[in-house]
Amino acid sequence: MSKERKIKVGITHGDINGIGYEVIMKALADETFTDLCTPVIFGSSRVAAHWRKACGMEDFRYNVISSVRDIRDGEVNLLNITDEEIKLDPGVPTAQSGAAALLSLQKAAEAFRNRDIDVIVTAPINKEAMKMAGFPFPGHTEFFENELGDGYKATMILMCDQPSVRVALLTTHLPIGQVAQHVTTEGVVEKLRSLHNTLRKDFAIERPKIAVLSLNPHAGDGGAIGTEEGDVITPAIQEAYNRKIMAFGPYAADGFFGSGNYARFDAILAMYHDQGLAPFKLLAMEEGVNFTAGLPLVRTSPDHGTGYDIVGQGVADAASMRCAIYTAIDILRRRLRYIRSRSNPLKKQYVDRSGDREVLDLTKADNAPGEILI
Amino acid sequence: MSKERKIKVGITHGDINGIGYEVIMKALADETFTDLCTPVIFGSSRVAAHWRKACGMEDFRYNVISSVRDIRDGEVNLLNITDEEIKLDPGVPTAQSGAAALLSLQKAAEAFRNRDIDVIVTAPINKEAMKMAGFPFPGHTEFFENELGDGYKATMILMCDQPSVRVALLTTHLPIGQVAQHVTTEGVVEKLRSLHNTLRKDFAIERPKIAVLSLNPHAGDGGAIGTEEGDVITPAIQEAYNRKIMAFGPYAADGFFGSGNYARFDAILAMYHDQGLAPFKLLAMEEGVNFTAGLPLVRTSPDHGTGYDIVGQGVADAASMRCAIYTAIDILRRRLRYIRSRSNPLKKQYVDRSGDREVLDLTKADNAPGEILI
Repeated sequence: MSKERKIKVGITHGDINGIGYEVIMKALADETFTDLCTPVIFGSSRVAAHWRKACGMEDFRYNVISSVRDIRDGEVNLLNITDEEIKLDPGVPTAQSGAAALLSLQKAAEAFRNRDIDVIVTAPINKEAMKMAGFPFPGHTEFFENELGDGYKATMILMCDQPSVRVALLTTHLPIGQVAQHVTTEGVVEKLRSLHNTLRKDFAIERPKIAVLSLNPHAGDGGAIGTEEGDVITPAIQEAYNRKIMAFGPYAADGFFGSGNYARFDAILAMYHDQGLAPFKLLAMEEGVNFTAGLPLVRTSPDHGTGYDIVGQGVADAASMRCAIYTAIDILRRRLRYIRSRSNPLKKQYVDRSGDREVLDLTKADNAPGEILI
Repeated sequence: MSKERKIKVGITHGDINGIGYEVIMKALADETFTDLCTPVIFGSSRVAAHWRKACGMEDFRYNVISSVRDIRDGEVNLLNITDEEIKLDPGVPTAQSGAAALLSLQKAAEAFRNRDIDVIVTAPINKEAMKMAGFPFPGHTEFFENELGDGYKATMILMCDQPSVRVALLTTHLPIGQVAQHVTTEGVVEKLRSLHNTLRKDFAIERPKIAVLSLNPHAGDGGAIGTEEGDVITPAIQEAYNRKIMAFGPYAADGFFGSGNYARFDAILAMYHDQGLAPFKLLAMEEGVNFTAGLPLVRTSPDHGTGYDIVGQGVADAASMRCAIYTAIDILRRRLRYIRSRSNPLKKQYVDRSGDREVLDLTKADNAPGEILI
């Protein structure tokens, strides 16, 4: 396979009753996109035709194919995952919309497994519809961890470029009442290790600095408001530091964001969903991207939902979807560069930094995610 | 007492090893301040003299007094709460700094009880130092609720004007592991009632709209991520609505802030500390104010801490302290206007709104917080 071949970006259509097709088409409407990559939408030509018309995107052109063998480089491809009629109920979660979203995910995962696509970008799904369709996972992250994880654990990272913020979550879709018991020293160390590797490999940051948020308000106030900071999180930061991972904290979440301290770190490890995502979404505005790190697959998605309330009005903002596609491409390129630069290293290679005399053993530092062709 | 008398603003000096004196002096340095109110610092002339010099504020003038009887209208007054020497350890919490902070609070509370001051603005304290001094409360809010609450419950509100955001907390200084069990239907209804009254009385919003955040991520996703939304919070919102309180939600915190939805409400009720405060502090930047609502006393404070790391450098930003003083004055004025406008109402007064035909019984709507003289 030629080195010059464009990156093939698989795009799942998400919930067909939401704004998935609208943001995909809007994002891909820019013709320079196909200079950069070869998009492959895993969808339905019937559904696509409906939304193209409903959203006034009649000018949008794509190449309808029925097999990955027919993918045309430099064009937008729509791979028909089904020839059947699918009932649309705009703005409503249905068993049909869930089943169509699930089929798209399965076909994309299969294509990735067969190396027919290089990365996957997912349009938003609706949890209720997915449940009706028998989808047993809380979300995309867990689905891909299970399908394409090869035993690796996924880390959910929310990121944006302006301002440059990356928020990783220790726990994701847990009720608040269960969060504390899921915060363990081993778990924090493992997440820091995974995050550290991702920052080096996928973001080309050689010595990343990671901030760890506290679990409790005021970082526990010396034990007065919870003991997890002293008992669990601080030992984890120390252990990570011993492993040459530059982790700092724990920081109280409110002051950390309010003071602008977040800008001084390459990534932030939040203990739970809302702690990380409420501030993140304020910072990222329209351009937030959800990146599933730690897996052989590079998977991104926009950080918004199905947009049932604005469906079919043509007003959905495609900025986040556009960023998700760019981000997937950027990450894959950096990851490949990282892997190539470290293939066949000297048996032991030392980087001697004057001053701190750190010794970096490159034979162990990376954790190559299986071969990725391009 | 003449109606023209200026509002007397009691200001506690907070932790004397922190930036308290610096932000108080900087805030009061603007001479127009004494046209607006009569500040009374509950502090130590020795400590004040030290910080005035250390922070290069030698031009700052104040009237040192030893009794509230000597308060001079139109000047900055410093009421000497002790003649003893107090040991200063800049940047460090000590038993002495805690004791001095506590004494200032007690003297201010006493002055308020005797109607010698009208509102209280508090400089930040250090929890560790307060503990050493035997202070049994998690913070100012609980101290004033106990000392000057007359049986009313305090509501912690974080607010700023630009953008206009008010965040109230259902639970405050609790470990995350204990939050869920403290979220009850009665508690949410009671907090909504208190918040509704505050918005009417202290902010002159006749029909306030309140957003209620969910406890769990994604508002519980229909029960998949926690059941409190359906079992506890939604019934509370319904009950509040039945009492003519315009409460809406529950909203998932991340999307609520990220979408800008927060701007459409007069206040937001967050379920726990970091959920409300991390986004709030990002929005408020330097001008956030902490307001203790629901008590006969109007108490505000800046939303920053003791600033041990920047103490004595003269670099502390007094914007939040300045806003805290203005806010206390504004709130007291609106509250007095509210109480006066409703004194001796007709036995039953109906407001007939065409369209929704809501009937408002003003004899019951308010909850006058005891007489406040001015």
